[in-house]
Amino acid sequence: MPEESRNAVVQPHSIRQHHPLDLYFHPRSVAVVGASSRPDGRGNGFLHGLFSQQFPGPIYPVNPKADTILGLRAYPQVLDIPGPLDYVISSIPAAGVPELLRQCAAKGVRLVHLFTAGFGESGYQERADLEGEILRIAREGGVRLLGPNCMGLYCPAGHLAWQRGFPTEPGPVGIVSQSGANADAIVGLGALRGLRFSKVISFGNGLDLNEADWFEYLGDDPETTVVGAYLEGVKDGRRFRQVLERVAHRKPVVILKGGRTEAGGRAAVSHTGSLAGNSQVWDALCRQTGAFRVFGLDELVDTLAAFRYLEPPRGPRVAIMGGGGGFSVLAADDCVAAGLEMPWFSAAVQERLREFVPVAGTSVRNPLDTGSLTRDEAHFTQAVRIITASGEVDCFLVHVGGIGLFSDTDADRTESLARVLVAGARATHLPMALVVRSNVPAYAESTQRLIEQCLAAGLAVFPTVAQAASALIKLRTHRQNGERRQQSDGLYHH
Amino acid sequence: MPEESRNAVVQPHSIRQHHPLDLYFHPRSVAVVGASSRPDGRGNGFLHGLFSQQFPGPIYPVNPKADTILGLRAYPQVLDIPGPLDYVISSIPAAGVPELLRQCAAKGVRLVHLFTAGFGESGYQERADLEGEILRIAREGGVRLLGPNCMGLYCPAGHLAWQRGFPTEPGPVGIVSQSGANADAIVGLGALRGLRFSKVISFGNGLDLNEADWFEYLGDDPETTVVGAYLEGVKDGRRFRQVLERVAHRKPVVILKGGRTEAGGRAAVSHTGSLAGNSQVWDALCRQTGAFRVFGLDELVDTLAAFRYLEPPRGPRVAIMGGGGGFSVLAADDCVAAGLEMPWFSAAVQERLREFVPVAGTSVRNPLDTGSLTRDEAHFTQAVRIITASGEVDCFLVHVGGIGLFSDTDADRTESLARVLVAGARATHLPMALVVRSNVPAYAESTQRLIEQCLAAGLAVFPTVAQAASALIKLRTHRQNGERRQQSDGLYHH
Repeated sequence: MPEESRNAVVQPHSIRQHHPLDLYFHPRSVAVVGASSRPDGRGNGFLHGLFSQQFPGPIYPVNPKADTILGLRAYPQVLDIPGPLDYVISSIPAAGVPELLRQCAAKGVRLVHLFTAGFGESGYQERADLEGEILRIAREGGVRLLGPNCMGLYCPAGHLAWQRGFPTEPGPVGIVSQSGANADAIVGLGALRGLRFSKVISFGNGLDLNEADWFEYLGDDPETTVVGAYLEGVKDGRRFRQVLERVAHRKPVVILKGGRTEAGGRAAVSHTGSLAGNSQVWDALCRQTGAFRVFGLDELVDTLAAFRYLEPPRGPRVAIMGGGGGFSVLAADDCVAAGLEMPWFSAAVQERLREFVPVAGTSVRNPLDTGSLTRDEAHFTQAVRIITASGEVDCFLVHVGGIGLFSDTDADRTESLARVLVAGARATHLPMALVVRSNVPAYAESTQRLIEQCLAAGLAVFPTVAQAASALIKLRTHRQNGERRQQSDGLYHH
Repeated sequence: MPEESRNAVVQPHSIRQHHPLDLYFHPRSVAVVGASSRPDGRGNGFLHGLFSQQFPGPIYPVNPKADTILGLRAYPQVLDIPGPLDYVISSIPAAGVPELLRQCAAKGVRLVHLFTAGFGESGYQERADLEGEILRIAREGGVRLLGPNCMGLYCPAGHLAWQRGFPTEPGPVGIVSQSGANADAIVGLGALRGLRFSKVISFGNGLDLNEADWFEYLGDDPETTVVGAYLEGVKDGRRFRQVLERVAHRKPVVILKGGRTEAGGRAAVSHTGSLAGNSQVWDALCRQTGAFRVFGLDELVDTLAAFRYLEPPRGPRVAIMGGGGGFSVLAADDCVAAGLEMPWFSAAVQERLREFVPVAGTSVRNPLDTGSLTRDEAHFTQAVRIITASGEVDCFLVHVGGIGLFSDTDADRTESLARVLVAGARATHLPMALVVRSNVPAYAESTQRLIEQCLAAGLAVFPTVAQAASALIKLRTHRQNGERRQQSDGLYHH
């Protein structure tokens, strides 16, 4: 597999300064136009975002009716700001944007992010015309536009975020999203699953810089090893296809396409003015370029987490381990329905497992069904080693959960369980997906602590077997795609 | 719709005493054979379960090597117990079960629950033979068997539970499960979703009393208005079909079939010795009887929650309300992919909504996309009333979530949001499914509090739009099934 898709440790300060878009993620100064003297005014979320990421340069609220906003000196207009200004966030109504852009051009601003909405997507002709006008002003003034109708940039290494609550540590996942709400959800759900981000770009209507520009950028970005996207439509199908093909050959790319149904497509027109395009076209595009198409935010995050934390397995055969006979049956169903294979272990392997797995209420065939195994580090790692050495499977799926995990007479069970699971994952070179089921109201906190400890140790944790299995099979396909490309490259070059 | 599927308030003490199985759920006394002098011994979980439900009658631990167990006097064997004994839980090894059953027969015990495993499901011939022997002894002695290889009975009204941590309040959901682990998960996941239970039966290998007996019982049980099941196989297909048809015509029935794949079927053999049967046969069985087949524990709980909390909609048309343009697009996709319809609102409705919904960053077409609506009870209920009065939809799907919900400058947002949502649900006679997305690590507790407040007010809360939509379409189908049956009954009777 290509080096970029490995779990590279990202150095936050190893920033190239040669890509033209790099500077947008590392501005020297930021202005928030339309910041409000009401503390919870809408534009002020951007100020809180910058504060939460400890943005080191000057931050300029712009509002003609305020002297100070959230403790910062406010300026009546952009041209009144004293120092150099790289990045402007616009939270004013659409009608004020042309004049704002003229001032930004005069001031030498590089990027204007238009949180401002109510343009082409509103369905009113005069507002679509206004969109055309601001693009013309920006082009003439040498200002690039992000948006309109979007949340902008989140880049922890550059100390940028559009709101509070985002992680301040960077990571290797890059996101391109046509929707701010879905970008929020990807960051939030991802953070809960241990993901951290290089750059997240919410680009909305994509009037100037569009999905192809940002994809191309993340494809080149050495800080990004996995790319995820939420897209409703593309501006230039031909260019997007070329860009996607290039990026997907270098890094895993996962795309959630909004508007896959006719009704969703209609909603996309209302949202970002996008023509959503035919769902089959997207299927073919992803299949042909090697990108992965997913169908919901959870699946998007599952897939990113899998690429972030696991090596792609060499084959489709999975060993399932965990307690609960009925749960093992469902786990087998879910794995096979996703496309994995679950062979019975050979008699030799079963015999070796039976040396320490009692007969009653267990099975050693595959699934290896015994809850007691995760209570004993030596037994658990021994089982993992026996199965690994057999060569009979290509990956592991381990599931834990339920009331039995957290008995009242064993207060330390969470910590010891995390220790056993981590030891198990380290006892094999095969990828191991861990499923931690959270189904006991009284133990919700302990379960969350268990998940956090496993994530901190670098394990890949999923909420359900079906989600883990679906992610494993995508890893497998990614490996096959790479092998196929290498073969066909070989054919060309010899 | 039949009266039984409504949200009947269950009176815990309105217990019939005329069904032969009733007594099993209300024993006067319980013995736990194989209770351990080690506090956390496996059989002791049953004692903790009885304690946690405040079982009012005598509880007898049976262990020849102990004087007291968990503060209770222990008896060497069942025949040494002084008073009458209705219900015996066996946690001893399989080899001791024949003698135990002889004693239970002599003592007049009505039901023996065999937690004991290691019979036919183990794959060893001598253990399958033992299974035959214990059935013979039980039949000759007039003792009925539950199990072997199961967790037994949970019945809060009868103060029975097989472990700690289950709700002590009863509710209208009845569960039949071939797996104890999955019964645990259904109770736990269900409790998190506001479900409470009449009777939960984990029946394992079903050697004597089997799935058909328990289904028939729950079908007749006035305390049960919705029936859920986890099944791996059935003992007598012909009888099961007859029972299922009868029950599903009276109450909504939701079945999760374990072993739907060949690999899962193999795992089911290891688990309960069940021959899993062909998945298409189960599809046809459910379709023809009007039962609902589901494919995972989450979907099972979603469907039970929908039948518990919502009236089935009269048609498939849904109004989607909530903030976030991209999220609205995905919500539309998920609803339509599940089989719902999402018509645009008429111009008249859109105009009335525009009177209080601002233009920028919103849509009033359907989805009604505006986050600010749930900040204002008057506006939210007004929107719900306008849409209801239009007659243009049959149900609502409202989604909330994300960072915006819980701003630091508005500490009471959780409470006020719950108030707005509850007021909205009460402003319409149409069913309303609520989706609360939990995707902000910092607000996990607030989100959970919001969910609990909405559940306490009787709202139907789902974790994702896809899950809510899938549940709504099942409600719709259930209503259609009922209407079709009424029509064909009408044809017969006229």
